[in-house]
Amino acid sequence: MMNFEVSLPQWAVEENQSLPKFMPEQEQRMRAVIRFAEINFEQKTGGPFAAGIFETKSGAVVGIGVNRVVPSNNSSAHAEIVAISLAQKKLATFDLGGPGMPDYQIVVNGRPCAMCCGALPWSGIRSLVIGASGERIESLTGFDEGAVHPRWQQELKSRGIEVIENVLSEEAEVVFQRFGDSSEPAYNGRSGGESV
Amino acid sequence: MMNFEVSLPQWAVEENQSLPKFMPEQEQRMRAVIRFAEINFEQKTGGPFAAGIFETKSGAVVGIGVNRVVPSNNSSAHAEIVAISLAQKKLATFDLGGPGMPDYQIVVNGRPCAMCCGALPWSGIRSLVIGASGERIESLTGFDEGAVHPRWQQELKSRGIEVIENVLSEEAEVVFQRFGDSSEPAYNGRSGGESV
Repeated sequence: MMNFEVSLPQWAVEENQSLPKFMPEQEQRMRAVIRFAEINFEQKTGGPFAAGIFETKSGAVVGIGVNRVVPSNNSSAHAEIVAISLAQKKLATFDLGGPGMPDYQIVVNGRPCAMCCGALPWSGIRSLVIGASGERIESLTGFDEGAVHPRWQQELKSRGIEVIENVLSEEAEVVFQRFGDSSEPAYNGRSGGESV
Repeated sequence: MMNFEVSLPQWAVEENQSLPKFMPEQEQRMRAVIRFAEINFEQKTGGPFAAGIFETKSGAVVGIGVNRVVPSNNSSAHAEIVAISLAQKKLATFDLGGPGMPDYQIVVNGRPCAMCCGALPWSGIRSLVIGASGERIESLTGFDEGAVHPRWQQELKSRGIEVIENVLSEEAEVVFQRFGDSSEPAYNGRSGGESV
């Protein structure tokens, strides 16, 4: 009980290094995020989820993170938490919406789960771009995305976070479909079944 | 963009080492958690929040974590995320509710925020014990606890997580009151104000 660490897999470190410095187009950002999600699943380095952080206007790339739950033994190491944590470390602040900073955007291949929706207002992020819907993730993969607030879009907007849905959603769904068709388990909690 | 780490402050490592191995009584567990929250705030090693993980029935102590947002430059380093991550590392599993494991309980000095409520089902935790209510945290401290689901208790229960509220709530509130009376800022995101 002293510390914990979450790392990107080596391929993701290298892929991040080879990204262009600026990705001005929203679909370009989403396409890169979907590719990271697909590689993460194929390489068995985590679940089929990725999240990228960009300067909203310029498209300057901060970095793309991936889900690391199973390899890290950490149920909170979702792509969004990993990407936000890495960006905050890189920019040396717990608030990506701090004084004098440009607006930052998070781009995700699927609608964030209840935990990750809740993480966004704390992060200082000002824009959320989504590929596949939460309903499609659940029906294609078997993940239980949790108790997302019934009016989550309005709740985020009321906290200064723009929400853009349905960006390259069909391409995003292909990865979730492949995960669902594979033998990989949806690592929802309490796999031991009934309370003992 | 390679890894991030969250550590407990030295005092919390030492306090964890000096805890009894078993804390059978619920109020005993809560009292320890409230003390960690208070020390964390007084020592300026994080916000006034702590979370402990225990075997529900035996009271075997896994460990108590504290909020590390500001010192770690990590907006997701809430006490619950820290405690769950440390417990999962210690027990070498991403699922505290896995096959053959005893039931685990998380004890928190205040109702978990939207992010942390969302983190619980993924964690495998089977029981949540709460000190102060979310409403009291917000009114005493100025933190915005986010879009917690309107029926969060039922949503957790439907996912196999017991919810016990109002345990030593007055003692828990004293710490939040002290935080609110101090000059410490509530580190909600987007401190830079309007989008730039």
